[in-house]
Amino acid sequence: MKYVYAFKEGNKDMRNLLGGKGANLAEMTGLGLPVPRGFTVTTEACLKYYEDQEELGEDIQKEIFEQLKALEAETKKTMGDSKNPLLVSVRSGARASMPGMMDTVLNLGMNDEVAKGFAEVTNNPRFVYDSYRRFIQMFADVVMGFPKSSFERLFDKIKEEKNVEFDTDLTAEDLMEVVDIYKQEYKKHAGVDFPQDPKVQLLEAVKAVFRSWNNDRAITYRRLNNIPSSWGTAVNVQEMVYGNRGNTSGTGVAFTRNPATGEKKLYGEYLMNAQGEDVVAGIRTPQSIDTLKDVMPECYEEFTRICKILEDHYKDMQDMEFTIEDGHLFMLQTRNGKRTAQAALQIAVDLVNEGMISEEEALLKVEPAQLDQLLHPNFDQAALKAAKPIAQGLAASPGAATGKIYFTAEDVMKAHEAGEKDILLVRLETSPEDIEGMNLAHGILTVRGGMTSHAAVVARGMGTCCVSGCGELVIDEEKKTLTTKDNQVFKEGDYMSLDGSTGYVYGEQIKTVEPEISGNFETFMNWADKVRTLQIRCNADNPKDAAVARKFGAEGIGLCRTEHMFFDSERIFNFRRMITATTQEAREEALEKILPYQRDDFEGLFRTMEGYGVTIRFLDPPLHEFLPHTDEEIKPLAESLGMTFEALKERVESLKEFNPMMGHRGCRLAVTYPEIAKMQTRAVIEAALKVKEDGIDIVPEIMIPLVGDEKELAFVKKIVTTTADQIIAENNSDLTYKVGTMIEIPRAALTADEIAKEAEFFSFGTNDLTQMTYGFSRDDAAKFLKDYYDKNIFEQDPFATLDQKGVGKLMKMAVELGRETRPDIKLGICGEHGGDPATIEFCDKIGLTYVSCSPYRVPVARLAAARAKLINN
Amino acid sequence: MKYVYAFKEGNKDMRNLLGGKGANLAEMTGLGLPVPRGFTVTTEACLKYYEDQEELGEDIQKEIFEQLKALEAETKKTMGDSKNPLLVSVRSGARASMPGMMDTVLNLGMNDEVAKGFAEVTNNPRFVYDSYRRFIQMFADVVMGFPKSSFERLFDKIKEEKNVEFDTDLTAEDLMEVVDIYKQEYKKHAGVDFPQDPKVQLLEAVKAVFRSWNNDRAITYRRLNNIPSSWGTAVNVQEMVYGNRGNTSGTGVAFTRNPATGEKKLYGEYLMNAQGEDVVAGIRTPQSIDTLKDVMPECYEEFTRICKILEDHYKDMQDMEFTIEDGHLFMLQTRNGKRTAQAALQIAVDLVNEGMISEEEALLKVEPAQLDQLLHPNFDQAALKAAKPIAQGLAASPGAATGKIYFTAEDVMKAHEAGEKDILLVRLETSPEDIEGMNLAHGILTVRGGMTSHAAVVARGMGTCCVSGCGELVIDEEKKTLTTKDNQVFKEGDYMSLDGSTGYVYGEQIKTVEPEISGNFETFMNWADKVRTLQIRCNADNPKDAAVARKFGAEGIGLCRTEHMFFDSERIFNFRRMITATTQEAREEALEKILPYQRDDFEGLFRTMEGYGVTIRFLDPPLHEFLPHTDEEIKPLAESLGMTFEALKERVESLKEFNPMMGHRGCRLAVTYPEIAKMQTRAVIEAALKVKEDGIDIVPEIMIPLVGDEKELAFVKKIVTTTADQIIAENNSDLTYKVGTMIEIPRAALTADEIAKEAEFFSFGTNDLTQMTYGFSRDDAAKFLKDYYDKNIFEQDPFATLDQKGVGKLMKMAVELGRETRPDIKLGICGEHGGDPATIEFCDKIGLTYVSCSPYRVPVARLAAARAKLINN
Repeated sequence: MKYVYAFKEGNKDMRNLLGGKGANLAEMTGLGLPVPRGFTVTTEACLKYYEDQEELGEDIQKEIFEQLKALEAETKKTMGDSKNPLLVSVRSGARASMPGMMDTVLNLGMNDEVAKGFAEVTNNPRFVYDSYRRFIQMFADVVMGFPKSSFERLFDKIKEEKNVEFDTDLTAEDLMEVVDIYKQEYKKHAGVDFPQDPKVQLLEAVKAVFRSWNNDRAITYRRLNNIPSSWGTAVNVQEMVYGNRGNTSGTGVAFTRNPATGEKKLYGEYLMNAQGEDVVAGIRTPQSIDTLKDVMPECYEEFTRICKILEDHYKDMQDMEFTIEDGHLFMLQTRNGKRTAQAALQIAVDLVNEGMISEEEALLKVEPAQLDQLLHPNFDQAALKAAKPIAQGLAASPGAATGKIYFTAEDVMKAHEAGEKDILLVRLETSPEDIEGMNLAHGILTVRGGMTSHAAVVARGMGTCCVSGCGELVIDEEKKTLTTKDNQVFKEGDYMSLDGSTGYVYGEQIKTVEPEISGNFETFMNWADKVRTLQIRCNADNPKDAAVARKFGAEGIGLCRTEHMFFDSERIFNFRRMITATTQEAREEALEKILPYQRDDFEGLFRTMEGYGVTIRFLDPPLHEFLPHTDEEIKPLAESLGMTFEALKERVESLKEFNPMMGHRGCRLAVTYPEIAKMQTRAVIEAALKVKEDGIDIVPEIMIPLVGDEKELAFVKKIVTTTADQIIAENNSDLTYKVGTMIEIPRAALTADEIAKEAEFFSFGTNDLTQMTYGFSRDDAAKFLKDYYDKNIFEQDPFATLDQKGVGKLMKMAVELGRETRPDIKLGICGEHGGDPATIEFCDKIGLTYVSCSPYRVPVARLAAARAKLINN
Repeated sequence: MKYVYAFKEGNKDMRNLLGGKGANLAEMTGLGLPVPRGFTVTTEACLKYYEDQEELGEDIQKEIFEQLKALEAETKKTMGDSKNPLLVSVRSGARASMPGMMDTVLNLGMNDEVAKGFAEVTNNPRFVYDSYRRFIQMFADVVMGFPKSSFERLFDKIKEEKNVEFDTDLTAEDLMEVVDIYKQEYKKHAGVDFPQDPKVQLLEAVKAVFRSWNNDRAITYRRLNNIPSSWGTAVNVQEMVYGNRGNTSGTGVAFTRNPATGEKKLYGEYLMNAQGEDVVAGIRTPQSIDTLKDVMPECYEEFTRICKILEDHYKDMQDMEFTIEDGHLFMLQTRNGKRTAQAALQIAVDLVNEGMISEEEALLKVEPAQLDQLLHPNFDQAALKAAKPIAQGLAASPGAATGKIYFTAEDVMKAHEAGEKDILLVRLETSPEDIEGMNLAHGILTVRGGMTSHAAVVARGMGTCCVSGCGELVIDEEKKTLTTKDNQVFKEGDYMSLDGSTGYVYGEQIKTVEPEISGNFETFMNWADKVRTLQIRCNADNPKDAAVARKFGAEGIGLCRTEHMFFDSERIFNFRRMITATTQEAREEALEKILPYQRDDFEGLFRTMEGYGVTIRFLDPPLHEFLPHTDEEIKPLAESLGMTFEALKERVESLKEFNPMMGHRGCRLAVTYPEIAKMQTRAVIEAALKVKEDGIDIVPEIMIPLVGDEKELAFVKKIVTTTADQIIAENNSDLTYKVGTMIEIPRAALTADEIAKEAEFFSFGTNDLTQMTYGFSRDDAAKFLKDYYDKNIFEQDPFATLDQKGVGKLMKMAVELGRETRPDIKLGICGEHGGDPATIEFCDKIGLTYVSCSPYRVPVARLAAARAKLINN
């Protein structure tokens, strides 16, 4: 095992081993570009470090010092040599760029003796002590974890004492004083002197980089970005070049194209007489890269030449760091640049038009999740920068919203009627009865509930921004107040803002901007459609959502949750009559009243989805979800139902369950009350026959939920087919329909060969399948999963990204068993995972027919499906 | 496919095809015994009948009539021939004897014309019309399903009119009148005349037998006795011999040995001038078989000779039916006789001593579940016969109990203190706080909860009779009344009786008898121990239960549920302090108080189980289970904890969960509160060190519950090993301990290869595994599973008998994956299924190391394990 590679030994394809930064430094070295020499300690070394209980093994240390020796030989400098010292930068670099980790230590190798000698040799003590004070501060901060602010305060004090504005105005003597003060401050924190041995400094820095792989920020970042902890990070050790050597030195960052718009024009900024961190720190205002043309024309020329080489080489927009030392340009980093969604599309389309990449390669250059930005309002970036979040919940449904807060759906409706435009709904949790208020709100904030809670699911379906599970907020629904953990109190009508893409909550109004969908979008999505084989369907319960999804390119409905149709006030009345009925006749009578509504709903969906498949899931939730639970609510309902309070109360009590998620729901309802399934079948079939008269061809797919055993499905299927065939015969028609099932109970996956005897299609209900496979209640898990993330037990929310190892194993098993019995069985996924790119890649791999997701997620899924095909092939 | 077999074509090994009765009739025919000729319509024909939507196919009808023709030829009688009619009996006969089904129709083939002619030919009109009236009644009852009572009433009326006591006193004319009246009654029910065509009669009877396979009684019987519906039943059609032909005719049943005691002595009874059903109907009192010696010495001689032949042939006690026609003996049935547990042991041991069978064969002659009878009190059979159940719940814990009912654990304790001896605890459901009252009660009855509810599990552990989930009863806990569905009301102190082996509830006092354990038990269990390779452990939470289990032969503890130790009043106080603590320090302080108790508990268990393994499961239930929920209960607790009511109420509220079964419990608690796992580890290790000082060698096995991911286990294991190793080192000892996990979450089974990296043993927690695999909440499922049984979707309660197809598949997978990683991994089962014989057979097959069950179940498990080995080899 080789743990350390010189830059010249590597190349860009060794990213997994050398990290992104290391691989690209090696690649640039290979291209003959001016890159300071150095070496990379590999990600394998990082993993070994953790395996060894956070110790750096002798073998790794040995290799580091061998490479250091070689570096000294090449640079003809020696670490610790006061006449000709080798100083190095130490920088982390994982496979994927990770802002959560330690970034950079510059000027490592500096100590009292080196500083003294180097100052004499260079005859530039200002530069040398500037470098030394920077080194102490960075070492204290990023290696030792001492508070940066205490050093910054000391530095500001000196500037004040010396009465200077910019740090460049400090003299060599001033800086020597800073170094002394810094060393004292260091000792105060560390208890020991600042380390003078460069090799000790180096090893400490390497270990600090490795440690930073598992700091809180990095863990959170990984979770949010789907990066496994098993990757580890590499460390790059590189000969220093000095942007702070004087006025013909400088440092900067630049992009080969504009990362905000995609415009093909060099974009960036630099500072003269400065080192790396100054550019971003904002101590002095950096200058636009364009001005470099006038300041140092040769360097500019050289830099644009290198930009062209790199773009041509990497075939993508590059994000680069450079330093100029005494008029000489050095490249310190290049990578594919991060960009907005708008820029990503522009660049992808441009690169294809420029003949640089193929359409398929273009697809791999845009992250599917990014497309969300294009479909939802966003905060104005400047306004957002000025704002400070007051809380963070789950990023449940993307987009940004600002408005006055209301605490009940009713209040939202009233405010809307009163002409209020910007409305946020703030609730402990939402329930199906809130649906109208949710529809009117521009953003939804809940204290409880995870990524698949009612609020989250419905909001995504509507394309409304939502932050859910924000447990640090306390809501008093009676007093209509919201209190932050800092005891800031918000009342009804106060302004707040929500970022559904980050989960941040702000206690103020922040300007939002509407997204612009360019022609590039159309072009690009067409490329995706050409490549993908997975069909994309949508989860939609009403014609409005279905129409949105069609607009976004949905090819049918993968999940219509019929229970969402029951919450309109007239329907819920009859539905409650049905639930509270004590005889089959009374139930049938109430169902008779509901039938016309359901039929109309389905007719609307069939017309919207003309020519595409529509999968209708039969009643799923436990009946008690439709009943009120407090005495205050039961009383009026009892009256309107013509029941005594006691009788209704008893019925409500008798329906209560200890664990409703595993209770009397799904097909279990149809087993107990076949008349419900009969009514729903009638509604589906009659609607299909009606649209058929208008020449609309539709094959309704009736989906039986929560099946765990072949016989359950056979029982319900028989009800469906008997009812349907009779209606079709009565109408002298020849309508085709299918009956299938959700695979959402582990046992259904385990016995999929048997279930496929009855089921004409499977649709993986990965929400429930995840719940049962893990034994996690999605309504309760958010509370304890926090501890799992904090303690590094889980890296991902299994309700957001499919657990391929466990849940995925069951899916794969079900696919194989299902196909054994019925080779042409149609296979889909309709859980919330259906819109997650990583999950879509998995679905493509195991050979599903389609994925189904919320309407606003359809473009993301189309792109993800195309990329999946490219990756899996 | 051949659907009908003549008796002479079959033999006893064709039981699956011919049913038990048919196969044995064929076997006796082959042995040359006097068996009336006949044929059997196979179980395959029955399955075909159901496949064809309950129609009897042409091919089957054709075969029946071909065999009938052959029978006519052999008997030289013709069906429907009035001079020489062939009459037949039609009897059902499944693979296993099934009292739920249609039993017998005699004298089929009789009609007006046949009766008239046959009466002339035989010159015995009394006999003929007696046969005819019997036929009409049986046909009406068992074939057509008309109420038997209406015919019985008519018959009684005639007897009254004729002023006779016994039916044998009716004259030929009387019986002709009966026939006429019966035909009218038949027409009243059927709307058509009694069928005169013998072939129609025959086909109707055959179909009736097939239909009876799926009547409610049969379905219930199959479920209770683990018989799959896919077996189907056969139909036997046999030439009639007439026990009612006069005073040298008769009919009877007999056993080759006493089925109550096992004594080797012919046992049975008979009636002269009677047909089959008279013996059991109790119209006349049958005579002991011994008296036949005097009445018909030749027949008796012949019968005893046949008994010997049959016992020697079948190598088991036989239960036979016979008929004597005019002094000639005919055998109508033989089968291995049902017997009490006591008799079963006696016969098994005798047969071995007689050299008839081997010890291993003897093991296969005793049903493991029967042993329960030997370990629990039972009702006096005569007293039971006189009683009528008022309700039926689940047979949750075997045994019988009679006593006065009390509605709270407190009332039970008061009654006990007041000197009351016979006490039943009646509750909506029990909770851990009821434990003391449960311990004092002789029987427990609950309205809610299934086979693995708290009441059921605890009662089985204590060996106390329990009927759970008796949903048809309504309990008013305030008023302390229990109301049956017939509105019978029982108050505190009223007598009731419970049969925990059948689930029946009686509204009266019924005498119980204590079981007797004979020396045969010891002998027999030793044979079982010689054969089995599965170890038998017990589920025990305290030294008392553990001692019982040891007495019954347990080889260690497979599951000690530590939470059961927290309910003592002093402990629960500190435990609640721990739960309500808001800081880690306060939690640790409370845990410090609990530590000595836990240590003492473990010490007691270790001493009781000296030399055997003891598996201790760490805290499993969600914390809110330990807190009160009503304001009335919260108030005093808040006071004693020194908290405000509001603060405690808020804590209680914040711990509430939507689906606690899938909530914050098991290892998830240890992730959030590592200090709990630390305390428990300390208690286990310190206790083990303490008994070690006394020379008791113990290897504690620490079991982490509810693991779904390797990293979860790794996290908790590290807490355990760090704590344990430190204590061991401090004590300068070298104690060995193991850390393992429950496999009770589907994901744990699916990723068992990874989990085995950390786990030194697996114990299958099949209660939870069943819940999650099916998505059934065991607390809620009882309600809707009723519909599943009624509609023939489920045949078994998956919480009582392991679902091998789904849950078992996961277990098998986990065994294989676990062994891949750790070939010598120890594998056990500790769910309630661990005491179920069918499950034990499965556990043996997939290669588990041990099964663990409740103490009173240990003998059952020992025998089941031995039988499993014999069957699986």
